[in-house]
Amino acid sequence: MSKKTKVADVHSLADELRVGKGFRLADVDPGSTPGFDGGKKAGAALLWERLDELGDWQEKLHAESTAGSERRLLLVVQGMDTAGKGGIMRHVVGAMDPEGVRATAFKKPTDEERRHEFLWRIRNALPGPGRVGVFDRSHYEDVLAVRVHDLVEPAEWRGRYAIINAFERDLVRDGTTVVKVMLHLSRDEQKARLTKRLDRPDKYYKYNPGDVDERGYWDDYMEAYQVALTRCSTTAAPWYVVPADHKWYARLAVQTLLLDAFERLDPQWPPASYDVAAEQRRLAES
Amino acid sequence: MSKKTKVADVHSLADELRVGKGFRLADVDPGSTPGFDGGKKAGAALLWERLDELGDWQEKLHAESTAGSERRLLLVVQGMDTAGKGGIMRHVVGAMDPEGVRATAFKKPTDEERRHEFLWRIRNALPGPGRVGVFDRSHYEDVLAVRVHDLVEPAEWRGRYAIINAFERDLVRDGTTVVKVMLHLSRDEQKARLTKRLDRPDKYYKYNPGDVDERGYWDDYMEAYQVALTRCSTTAAPWYVVPADHKWYARLAVQTLLLDAFERLDPQWPPASYDVAAEQRRLAES
Repeated sequence: MSKKTKVADVHSLADELRVGKGFRLADVDPGSTPGFDGGKKAGAALLWERLDELGDWQEKLHAESTAGSERRLLLVVQGMDTAGKGGIMRHVVGAMDPEGVRATAFKKPTDEERRHEFLWRIRNALPGPGRVGVFDRSHYEDVLAVRVHDLVEPAEWRGRYAIINAFERDLVRDGTTVVKVMLHLSRDEQKARLTKRLDRPDKYYKYNPGDVDERGYWDDYMEAYQVALTRCSTTAAPWYVVPADHKWYARLAVQTLLLDAFERLDPQWPPASYDVAAEQRRLAES
Repeated sequence: MSKKTKVADVHSLADELRVGKGFRLADVDPGSTPGFDGGKKAGAALLWERLDELGDWQEKLHAESTAGSERRLLLVVQGMDTAGKGGIMRHVVGAMDPEGVRATAFKKPTDEERRHEFLWRIRNALPGPGRVGVFDRSHYEDVLAVRVHDLVEPAEWRGRYAIINAFERDLVRDGTTVVKVMLHLSRDEQKARLTKRLDRPDKYYKYNPGDVDERGYWDDYMEAYQVALTRCSTTAAPWYVVPADHKWYARLAVQTLLLDAFERLDPQWPPASYDVAAEQRRLAES
């Protein structure tokens, strides 16, 4: 494994992927690899090298919470079907201690969830102090799938952008670092990935005939994403759009965004809450 | 990394570690490595090689559940402080998709938990269909710490062994494969590990003055373990005692026990619930 690729190579990545003023999703090439000059091999090697780093940060965040800190991290992952959300879970999030991670996949709302306002199930899945929460899909479906398929009145989904921004502002104010990632896949690459699922009996279970129907709404989805990304990329909780036609790049990018977020969060080892020297003596005699 | 160490080398491991007739905890050497002839380097390499295998099994178990199967797996990890439970979480359990894993650390019961019978919080943490549940400590604390410190009347804890056996029998009958592991550490190795925590400011948070007090009850704990291991090692849900003075061995052993359990469970890829050829045509035209 090459040790030559340095973290420095991907340091500007967050800046390149952040959704800012004048952002246009249509201008992002899903096959590009912004902020990283190496190829697949170097990218995979770097991902690998930094697995422990991510686990170490999570431990430090947890350690801080044992002394009363309320800080925590929330990773939101959005993307069209087959965009690689599952791979992010297994290959990036999996590097952290499972006890320190709270991962939730948001599916079509259940009857109970539907009886509550749309943020209810989201609030129930937020991470506790010292934890890393991970959302596979999220409250953004309520301005994506819901908007595309007119599942509620337009007046209702139109009001949700402001509600989401206020909700996320509160999260940040209360000590949550929010990292929002859209895995941006091309329509052609999605077709290739769905085709693969139909070629392999061990992937049949991942395919749903509804996936093809959804492809008919591709442009509507891109429009809904464009609006959600620009209206809800705030200073407190910016959106990052990660080109996702190359799985290795998407994983490396999300890992980098998480490492950056931890670095900014900068959790602290808590001081000993006991007399270290006295404990050393007691222990020696035990 | 050596590819020469084969799974075959560790295949008898489960048989060697299972708690059977006449088992005596005092006869198990915490520094031994039953069922594995290689050393640390070969053991770590093998652990590494099989990380994906564990993730693949978990995916298959999840896949099976999408077609209605209720089967699931529960890993219970017990051990004295510093026995390496955290390392098992990060280095073994972490190889599986976080969305497919439900990990719970059982601490001293909260006031609410205390108002319910001792299995209440356990039932609330059981994995759903297709999931892998992981308990870091468990209902066994209710016949270990509780027994050692007389936290309930003897008549009460005495009745719990039978309650636990009935509870686990029901779990197994309802489709849960139960893997129970005790990480068996020596008193001296615990001292060395606690001493290290007091030597490193980044590990202070893991140390608790109560840990030294607990060392005074070491023999009582071993006696309580002896009884729990022998009374609750059933055909349905056997106990495995894993020597834990070598961290690399303990991780390799637990990984092997999980792989064995998955192999016996033998989850099946569900057949397509749709017409594959028709979907291939529809997709091609989409």
